[in-house]
Amino acid sequence: MILSQAITVIESNLADDRKLSTRLLEKIIHATGKSIRIGITGVPGVGKSSFIESFGTHITSLGKKLAVLTVDPSSQITKGSILGDKTRMEGLSRQPSAYIRPSPSGSTLGGVAQKTNDVMLLCEAAGYEIIIIETVGVGQSEVSVKNLVDFFLLLMLAGAGDELQGIKKGITEVAHAIVITKADGDNIKNALAAKASYEQALHLNPSTGTAWTPKVLTTSAHTKKGIEEIWRLITSYVDQSTADGTFVTNRKAQNNDLLQIYFQELLGLDVARFRSWQSEREKLQGKVFEKKISANAAAEKLLRTYHSAIRENSE
Amino acid sequence: MILSQAITVIESNLADDRKLSTRLLEKIIHATGKSIRIGITGVPGVGKSSFIESFGTHITSLGKKLAVLTVDPSSQITKGSILGDKTRMEGLSRQPSAYIRPSPSGSTLGGVAQKTNDVMLLCEAAGYEIIIIETVGVGQSEVSVKNLVDFFLLLMLAGAGDELQGIKKGITEVAHAIVITKADGDNIKNALAAKASYEQALHLNPSTGTAWTPKVLTTSAHTKKGIEEIWRLITSYVDQSTADGTFVTNRKAQNNDLLQIYFQELLGLDVARFRSWQSEREKLQGKVFEKKISANAAAEKLLRTYHSAIRENSE
Repeated sequence: MILSQAITVIESNLADDRKLSTRLLEKIIHATGKSIRIGITGVPGVGKSSFIESFGTHITSLGKKLAVLTVDPSSQITKGSILGDKTRMEGLSRQPSAYIRPSPSGSTLGGVAQKTNDVMLLCEAAGYEIIIIETVGVGQSEVSVKNLVDFFLLLMLAGAGDELQGIKKGITEVAHAIVITKADGDNIKNALAAKASYEQALHLNPSTGTAWTPKVLTTSAHTKKGIEEIWRLITSYVDQSTADGTFVTNRKAQNNDLLQIYFQELLGLDVARFRSWQSEREKLQGKVFEKKISANAAAEKLLRTYHSAIRENSE
Repeated sequence: MILSQAITVIESNLADDRKLSTRLLEKIIHATGKSIRIGITGVPGVGKSSFIESFGTHITSLGKKLAVLTVDPSSQITKGSILGDKTRMEGLSRQPSAYIRPSPSGSTLGGVAQKTNDVMLLCEAAGYEIIIIETVGVGQSEVSVKNLVDFFLLLMLAGAGDELQGIKKGITEVAHAIVITKADGDNIKNALAAKASYEQALHLNPSTGTAWTPKVLTTSAHTKKGIEEIWRLITSYVDQSTADGTFVTNRKAQNNDLLQIYFQELLGLDVARFRSWQSEREKLQGKVFEKKISANAAAEKLLRTYHSAIRENSE
């Protein structure tokens, strides 16, 4: 499959592949931006995979092509992924109109955001109309994924304690909807109670700078309850925000933030390519450790070394 | 108080204050590094303030000078602080040998880490023997605070669900001890059960690259149970890691990571000072949004603009 091969090039950190990615993206950029981009997050155990399986199957049943990308910031620390792969969404992965791709790796959050964005653009150019970006929900990645999606869905468990799930501040400030999962059987009553209490919390802490009030829904991956309603909510958000202009305003702000992230990633690579800078850094690491110089003063020396390297290099 | 005034200079983002900070740090750098640096984290609601109040009071009762610094990454998003100020630790803040300082603000995680480190160095130079760095525990800040402390303490609630608290992976990988809070009254049984289950989880997922096995303890800010034990655990860790060399190895690795953070922060400021770069960025933001150029290609142009600005600037 050509899409998968192109993504492999995008995800590569080899210098040659980087050049190829830039050329590749240049060719497809005109065909991007037309999908609805949905972020889905929630703490481990909330049932993200089951939800995406049900929700994604509903989307493909409407005749739409869906791509699911996962972002796992923990791979930065552990060099391994919390999330599994497509075996987590077996039914969905068997559908020809659904494409599931695990997390691109990266040594920085910015690098992961950049690669996820590039992969998303490729999927859009390949005709995927709905993109889901799933994050593991431990707080690190939500901020960067906010720069990638139009609609942010926060999955929560009933009765697990507001404080533990960050309801009051933080993630909820970027969420367009809260979905309470596992609302089936004996748990329905809890889920409805949680819905009421979250609605009140959102009422007390309204988001600023937008006409949209975050909605709270309940769902069950088991009974499929709420799945269709969530999809309708998202399309109504897209309609409303397109009409009042916030959809475009949001994409513009994301565009500017992303350009900054791309630049910073590239700048980091540029600095590291100079041997003179590398050896000066090694020397200064030792001096800072021995308290012969402060890290601030050492950073200033490193900046001067970088400037000199650029001046001495090819004009 | 001179320390507070010095910290205000460090926290300032004004160019003149930055120069003054560097001079200030250069003067005190030889007198730093001698404290025991303790990181304390846990989700909101776990009882961090109450724990630090009890734990800090124990430390000062041993005749030691203690500084408590808080890091709140959410201020990056919300421009406001989840954490309150010293009113959260009323008893401790009244003690002459304790110093409590709220979170430095910063537009990046790196910037917050840098400023927190500088403030910590000032406290050390001012004679504080124990530094506590408290983070809000939503996942974003733990990784950068790991670069600042010798010993990382993770506070957890009994019975709140492992998954929700990130026990399996992530934060636990950086923790030297897990402390189960609110182990008093009817909750003692739950706390002990949680202790057993966390001990088993840590046994199944041992940390790599260190001789230290994370310990699990229970505590109560109410009855003060466990407080002295936690202090003894920390001192025994310091003794053991000093003897086997990991204390110094850890500080060295932190030193190198921090120098990189300081450099990146400075590099970001350096780029932004060029008007030619600023105006090129504005132009490219528009072109990327209109899909006339990919963000990758635009970032490359921005890098070339930065290079030119450096070459044309004072040699």
